[in-house]
Amino acid sequence: MKLNTIKIIGFDADDTLWVNEPYYRESEEKFCKLLSGYSDQANTMKVLFNTEMDNLALYGYGTKSFMLSMVETAIKVSGRKVKPTEIQDIIKLGKTQIERSNELIPGVEEVLQKLSTSYRLIVATKGDLLDQERKLEKSELSGYFHHIEIMPEKKENNYRKLLSHLDIQPHEFLMVGNSLKSDILPVVRIGGYAIYVPFHTTWEYEKTFANPEDIDLFQEVHSIKDVPSVVFKGNNNI
Amino acid sequence: MKLNTIKIIGFDADDTLWVNEPYYRESEEKFCKLLSGYSDQANTMKVLFNTEMDNLALYGYGTKSFMLSMVETAIKVSGRKVKPTEIQDIIKLGKTQIERSNELIPGVEEVLQKLSTSYRLIVATKGDLLDQERKLEKSELSGYFHHIEIMPEKKENNYRKLLSHLDIQPHEFLMVGNSLKSDILPVVRIGGYAIYVPFHTTWEYEKTFANPEDIDLFQEVHSIKDVPSVVFKGNNNI
Repeated sequence: MKLNTIKIIGFDADDTLWVNEPYYRESEEKFCKLLSGYSDQANTMKVLFNTEMDNLALYGYGTKSFMLSMVETAIKVSGRKVKPTEIQDIIKLGKTQIERSNELIPGVEEVLQKLSTSYRLIVATKGDLLDQERKLEKSELSGYFHHIEIMPEKKENNYRKLLSHLDIQPHEFLMVGNSLKSDILPVVRIGGYAIYVPFHTTWEYEKTFANPEDIDLFQEVHSIKDVPSVVFKGNNNI
Repeated sequence: MKLNTIKIIGFDADDTLWVNEPYYRESEEKFCKLLSGYSDQANTMKVLFNTEMDNLALYGYGTKSFMLSMVETAIKVSGRKVKPTEIQDIIKLGKTQIERSNELIPGVEEVLQKLSTSYRLIVATKGDLLDQERKLEKSELSGYFHHIEIMPEKKENNYRKLLSHLDIQPHEFLMVGNSLKSDILPVVRIGGYAIYVPFHTTWEYEKTFANPEDIDLFQEVHSIKDVPSVVFKGNNNI
């Protein structure tokens, strides 16, 4: 990739800078166990996913949305028999997830150190603002970033708004993330560049496949540690 | 006020651009009625407020936080006897509140029209990102704003970050809002300007009093309609 026009590099947060999705998986597992007297795991998970999808436009992303959808799911799968103490346990599950200290993806700090000397770095993430600010603060990475951009959705139009707000053109922007659907495809479709760093756990909703015509505009790497060499090599590739 | 250095004007959103707090008051009233078999209104409101305060650092602002705190309050004030159908009703209350089409404060559009010809306007608000984006879209005001800035808190440090992100100095920023605590005092304390437009309904948590030493740096007006004349007069006041 030619990357000699890049001015700003955006990093996705969850599962790109720090571990996130596995925490949801663990909460879901505990949630299914909690309701195992009413419904088996497969059914609970199916109802939960459908409830989350039904609520997505109204609630958006993040742990609070997840908590509200778990409460609704519990009422549904129990045939309205769920006990108040069980609802309490569900809320506790969510609170514990919010409070969890997040684990950085190995190599992240070194990558940011290398890139921040030559580029303006931002965090571009969807999700709950407070969740993300808290994670950034805990991570002690905030010094590397000019600011954190919370997007309601990561679609082409949202990236267009982001670029206009950053006062840059698409070819001056590179996005790094673990979701083809949210971090990579919408960026390359508006003329930006992207580096795709897959993560082992992906939420069902984020799963997608790349179209062959997009492939020239982004590059897939095995680990975030590979990002600086792709960027610096791309910058010399005039 | 001398306002000849201003480049960007920030507007608070809830109860500055559009009605918000009264919707919470209405939901709270319905919530108290729903639980009247377990607890009287005064007690329910007290427990709800305390629960919201306990959860504020964890959840932040917005309707989803309010919903989760209502669910917890219902469990508490009912002595863990609340019925799943009642929890369902609480969730419905919150969803209805999120979906409510918001009513603009009279005069807002004309004010933005006048100011947008001479200043860059932004929305600077706390709360839930999706809530605020949805309200902005519904309001049909988004064309007047360069972007929407969602802040986890509206404290001095958050405003400092905002200004650094906007690449401007404090004396180049004017904030317009209905909360002394969130919109006015933190801005003038870091050297910015502010116009205070009180609204008839204020959340208990937002109530505060101004310190006399801050009074020179902000001006109180009766209605948002008075803002352009204060700004244009302040600009000529060299």
